[in-house]
Amino acid sequence: MNEALTPEQSELVDKAASVARKCLEPRASGYDESASHPWESWHDLWEHGFLGAAVPQEYGGLGLDMLTYISVVEKLAAGCTNSTMTLHMHSVVQMFIDALMTEEQKAALYPDVIDEGRLFGSWGSEPDDRGGSVVRGTVLSRRDGEDAGYVVSGRKHFCTMAGAAFRYMVHCNVDGYDGPQGYQLVLIPKDTPGIQVTGGWNTLGMRATVSPGVSFEECLVSQDALLGRPGEALTVGVMEAFGLGYAAIYIGAAQRALDFTVDYLKTQRRGSETETLAYGSAVQNYVAEMTMALEGARQVLYQSAARWAGADPQGRAVLAARAKLPATQAALMVTSRCLETVGGRSAHRHFPLERLFRDVRTSTLMPPNVQRSIEIIGRTELGVADDVLDARYS
Amino acid sequence: MNEALTPEQSELVDKAASVARKCLEPRASGYDESASHPWESWHDLWEHGFLGAAVPQEYGGLGLDMLTYISVVEKLAAGCTNSTMTLHMHSVVQMFIDALMTEEQKAALYPDVIDEGRLFGSWGSEPDDRGGSVVRGTVLSRRDGEDAGYVVSGRKHFCTMAGAAFRYMVHCNVDGYDGPQGYQLVLIPKDTPGIQVTGGWNTLGMRATVSPGVSFEECLVSQDALLGRPGEALTVGVMEAFGLGYAAIYIGAAQRALDFTVDYLKTQRRGSETETLAYGSAVQNYVAEMTMALEGARQVLYQSAARWAGADPQGRAVLAARAKLPATQAALMVTSRCLETVGGRSAHRHFPLERLFRDVRTSTLMPPNVQRSIEIIGRTELGVADDVLDARYS
Amino acid sequence: MNEALTPEQSELVDKAASVARKCLEPRASGYDESASHPWESWHDLWEHGFLGAAVPQEYGGLGLDMLTYISVVEKLAAGCTNSTMTLHMHSVVQMFIDALMTEEQKAALYPDVIDEGRLFGSWGSEPDDRGGSVVRGTVLSRRDGEDAGYVVSGRKHFCTMAGAAFRYMVHCNVDGYDGPQGYQLVLIPKDTPGIQVTGGWNTLGMRATVSPGVSFEECLVSQDALLGRPGEALTVGVMEAFGLGYAAIYIGAAQRALDFTVDYLKTQRRGSETETLAYGSAVQNYVAEMTMALEGARQVLYQSAARWAGADPQGRAVLAARAKLPATQAALMVTSRCLETVGGRSAHRHFPLERLFRDVRTSTLMPPNVQRSIEIIGRTELGVADDVLDARYS
Amino acid sequence: MNEALTPEQSELVDKAASVARKCLEPRASGYDESASHPWESWHDLWEHGFLGAAVPQEYGGLGLDMLTYISVVEKLAAGCTNSTMTLHMHSVVQMFIDALMTEEQKAALYPDVIDEGRLFGSWGSEPDDRGGSVVRGTVLSRRDGEDAGYVVSGRKHFCTMAGAAFRYMVHCNVDGYDGPQGYQLVLIPKDTPGIQVTGGWNTLGMRATVSPGVSFEECLVSQDALLGRPGEALTVGVMEAFGLGYAAIYIGAAQRALDFTVDYLKTQRRGSETETLAYGSAVQNYVAEMTMALEGARQVLYQSAARWAGADPQGRAVLAARAKLPATQAALMVTSRCLETVGGRSAHRHFPLERLFRDVRTSTLMPPNVQRSIEIIGRTELGVADDVLDARYS
Repeated sequence: MNEALTPEQSELVDKAASVARKCLEPRASGYDESASHPWESWHDLWEHGFLGAAVPQEYGGLGLDMLTYISVVEKLAAGCTNSTMTLHMHSVVQMFIDALMTEEQKAALYPDVIDEGRLFGSWGSEPDDRGGSVVRGTVLSRRDGEDAGYVVSGRKHFCTMAGAAFRYMVHCNVDGYDGPQGYQLVLIPKDTPGIQVTGGWNTLGMRATVSPGVSFEECLVSQDALLGRPGEALTVGVMEAFGLGYAAIYIGAAQRALDFTVDYLKTQRRGSETETLAYGSAVQNYVAEMTMALEGARQVLYQSAARWAGADPQGRAVLAARAKLPATQAALMVTSRCLETVGGRSAHRHFPLERLFRDVRTSTLMPPNVQRSIEIIGRTELGVADDVLDARYS
Repeated sequence: MNEALTPEQSELVDKAASVARKCLEPRASGYDESASHPWESWHDLWEHGFLGAAVPQEYGGLGLDMLTYISVVEKLAAGCTNSTMTLHMHSVVQMFIDALMTEEQKAALYPDVIDEGRLFGSWGSEPDDRGGSVVRGTVLSRRDGEDAGYVVSGRKHFCTMAGAAFRYMVHCNVDGYDGPQGYQLVLIPKDTPGIQVTGGWNTLGMRATVSPGVSFEECLVSQDALLGRPGEALTVGVMEAFGLGYAAIYIGAAQRALDFTVDYLKTQRRGSETETLAYGSAVQNYVAEMTMALEGARQVLYQSAARWAGADPQGRAVLAARAKLPATQAALMVTSRCLETVGGRSAHRHFPLERLFRDVRTSTLMPPNVQRSIEIIGRTELGVADDVLDARYS
Repeated sequence: MNEALTPEQSELVDKAASVARKCLEPRASGYDESASHPWESWHDLWEHGFLGAAVPQEYGGLGLDMLTYISVVEKLAAGCTNSTMTLHMHSVVQMFIDALMTEEQKAALYPDVIDEGRLFGSWGSEPDDRGGSVVRGTVLSRRDGEDAGYVVSGRKHFCTMAGAAFRYMVHCNVDGYDGPQGYQLVLIPKDTPGIQVTGGWNTLGMRATVSPGVSFEECLVSQDALLGRPGEALTVGVMEAFGLGYAAIYIGAAQRALDFTVDYLKTQRRGSETETLAYGSAVQNYVAEMTMALEGARQVLYQSAARWAGADPQGRAVLAARAKLPATQAALMVTSRCLETVGGRSAHRHFPLERLFRDVRTSTLMPPNVQRSIEIIGRTELGVADDVLDARYS
Repeated sequence: MNEALTPEQSELVDKAASVARKCLEPRASGYDESASHPWESWHDLWEHGFLGAAVPQEYGGLGLDMLTYISVVEKLAAGCTNSTMTLHMHSVVQMFIDALMTEEQKAALYPDVIDEGRLFGSWGSEPDDRGGSVVRGTVLSRRDGEDAGYVVSGRKHFCTMAGAAFRYMVHCNVDGYDGPQGYQLVLIPKDTPGIQVTGGWNTLGMRATVSPGVSFEECLVSQDALLGRPGEALTVGVMEAFGLGYAAIYIGAAQRALDFTVDYLKTQRRGSETETLAYGSAVQNYVAEMTMALEGARQVLYQSAARWAGADPQGRAVLAARAKLPATQAALMVTSRCLETVGGRSAHRHFPLERLFRDVRTSTLMPPNVQRSIEIIGRTELGVADDVLDARYS
């Protein structure tokens, strides 16, 4: 599919497609129905090495470049949007660890992933936060004395893998700082006293990401839990990878919907007709429009991924917005249109289309949203983007 | 809202809006969750007279003209898409009764509706039927001898109100006939032996319409169960009212989503900002586009309804297609865009948006679908529609 | 077409359609080619009474209500977008005269229109003005002494009918005033010394509106040239009629393109085929989409026109924006799509399609533009429109 | 811009951009106005080697691979859509010569291009042909006797460079053959007796391609004028390159419109405001949407070009359709939206926007048109394309 990959990279992408089809997809509907953690799919992802997709090779991971990583995520998402979303969030945490922590810290953390198959979460949203990445309410304070260390207090929303991830990378503000200089990521172990789930999780889609609200009351962590210095996390060009991976997930999910639809049209007949539905001109039109919308979005995503390594954080924010905007638009159109193409029975839950439709409509709400992406791209093209990109953290 | 209505008609429309808000909406989420019949909402609709919306006044109904009827349906749908859909199907059955049955039959049937608050269903779809109105597999045969009468055998899909409606108007083919000449509607009492639910009902949306598959095995009915002569049902211009009412439901549901969104934007603030979200230029753009898309579709719907009485069956098929196409497109856009406008939290089930989004995506799959509507309109404008409109029944 | 019109009103609309077809359309291409004033078409419009469409009946005009007026403009535009645009501008001047001037002044001015067939222009745009209605640079000063009166100085852009209209209604700012309080309309006779055309007129479309730049150097006018008191012009709800009429022109022009296309498809065959092009499913789709886009826009336009009389100036600004936005979008889509539907030969200038395409793309740039209309509608729906509507004149 | 190019290839693409800006663009408006052959721009293209873009290196040409060729065409089109369109048609003729002729023939023909700077045209359309590539009416017959050779008779439409190209590659049908087996390309020298221009050329856009109708009355040509055997031209995968190059032209033209618009917004201010127009949120939205639409189309075009060498004729037809469809849609949107973004003054002919707008609307009508492209893509994805692709020549 992607001529820019080496044969080894392509093989890995093919493996991801196979794992998606054989391991992830059969369970996707069940996890969705029960809105429960995809434990078995996580186990499969671990067994096939994908939990280490973003872990450096010297620590036993795959150490993928961004184009290969994105291609893997795209293929996995075709099997299960939800477990792939959690894998992607986990992977961005691994990228942060690689960028911000010492070799000793890495040596202590990566075996949890590679050897034990554990996932790490990343929690950034807050109740008053709409569409931005502002961190105001979750505060990291230094504590001296007997049990010296650091204390985290505050509340987060949309805490994916709450209760299931082994560590939560919480986006905090260092007490006393104002603005991006105080931005601090902290890895909080799952069983730390003071963590409490505060809300339910019953949503349109992405139900198996299990992302309730969580409160932190004086949660004590050690110095080793901190990723880099205050403000440093925003300077390493990793935060922007969230959006790039989302784009890959949307395209993978929508491609799965389209593939299902094409298979359906190629095999089903109406009544006693001899030709399959594939011979209808209306569905041919639909399939052509969906194919090209997805292909355009996919090629732009690959372009952004290919340029990733050479870009600074601001440039990466633009690359992510460029990838996420068309992927959002194409995936929303395709998943809705697939339902229309297949017709009334596509609304039944024993078909995968309605689940993919719900997952795409839900996951495309994640930041940067459509309007924010448009703003980043438009201002960049017009040479007036500086303040906008800074505004993420102000 | 609609200048073409008399004060009395407007008052009734206002009453529908009030019933929607106070009676229907509070239960809509629960019926959706459990995918169960909206018994209590049906009771309220009855108490307020709406079960008789299409029953002639001389039999105790409201006997509404099409424009008022459509306006009432639109308002009710804002409260509960599902109970309004069942009401609309029930109402079309009443229109068929009025058009095809004798005064004696009417006098025997209407009191069930007016006095007892019972609903009638209409089942037309069949397993091999995709998008059309073909009736092939459900056969009506004459039986002579001791228990003389008529026998219905076959299978239907999407049997809305199965197990709950008091009578089912089943679309049959008279044994020995071929094509539209054999089209026969039959009112089968709910408890007739031989009726069996054959499939489940677990869908994306419209879950409270409870529309499983149903099989009929030698179901015996009397002569009085037949609505008119074979083929007559297709000549009275009632079948086409299904699509017109669907359009009203889409618009009512989408308007509710938009109203919720506007209220949300007018009352919510981001973080510590003093201005509400309504001051953001991006959401203003979204609201403007949604408002005008809905308004255009609504005005076309009203135009079709106003021309209804003067049109023949072919003309009504065109009027219905003209109403349903823009209503479908606008409602799909608006319900999806509302989620985007409100953002991530709109995906939570305690907000009504995701339910309306699922209901609209599901109900807009009902015939005539987008492509079929386009075909009817395009061929009519180009003067080559005759065979297309006939093809409905061939 | 429009059920809300009386038989007399409908007859007038039919007459407009006939004048458009027989008198205006045959000359439209020639005026476009030469970018020259449509003198002969103006003469026909006068002969058939349309120059007095907005002149009160007591002064010999038709004194049309807004819905009839808009319907007439829509029909005329199908014949010649350009002469209809000039007629509409002229008509809005007549509305201002009716709203702002004394009976004596009206008695002096209207006979120019009714008896002599002369047109009045309206010039509001200025070089630094982009999309708004700000009047800053054209100043009206009082002059005392021997040749006492008023003096106009400044520059205007897009001066439609420059050199051809009998009087120019120039939008001025009274010297010494700031903001809307100084807004003053002045009727300047064509031959007033000091008027000079300063720019050329060679444009994509609307070429026969001949709208170059014009400068005013100490142009002396009498007291009788002033329409009302300073600021009064903005309070009478006439300014907003510009946009409403534009919407009618776009729809009329696009309908003409669609009608031509439908006729073409119904009569042309490909090669030796026996069926006309109308039997192709792709063109049926196109025609259906164009038909419904136009119909939705038209119904919204009629809704705005029907509500015009009962609305205040702010309400009329909203009604005009609601009409102009969908009319713009539909007309742009339809005229472009018609070229695609007819194919390569549609680009030839001996077909009317490319002219209508150029005229619609050009005229839809007139204020309020798409973004401004969206802003007005969105803010109104969200209850935050007050400052926006005032901002027109700030 | 394009990472897949070598430094040498990129340099050539940069050179094309420079020639477009410095040589082609300054004359584009004049050629458009007069609808005349771009002789001087052709001369510049020759001087810079671009007339030999598709001529093999061993004959003095550039012998470009498809990706580089397409990138060059894209850049040149930004300067002058018209001269680039003629260059592209000329280049496809060179590809046919390379694929179908002997070394002796090539040695006789290529110097006309490389040494003399002459262009070759390609004429395929016929009066009864709408959107297809059918060749029926232009017949090639064998003539024996004294002036033995071949005779061409018939009529062609849209004969680009009529009267200016040195040779016309005419698409003929060998007398006595039926269908693709008789498809024969013939290179007819410009001054051959019997060639007559039969129609005018006054069009919306692409005016400098000068493409009138031409009739051939018993035009005598030698055996050496024939490119390959009957039917062979359809088997070499060159015909499909027409559409691929068109896509590059649309994108290049639309990118020029967007670049102009961005420059305008970055430098213009409204009234006395201190910030440029680039700070307006509405224009930022427009620019973002235009940028991403073009980028998606461009990446798909590059994908098609990169896969060209490895594809058979059917595969190339699909690659061309995949490139042309999104390029058409994006370019139409962008050129129309640029006019809206800049506003009323963009309609003036001294700005390049309206010319690019007219050229894109006109050139996108060339085959395969939107509907044909959709059909090819849709049927290919659904596995039912065989007959459609064959149908081109039936």
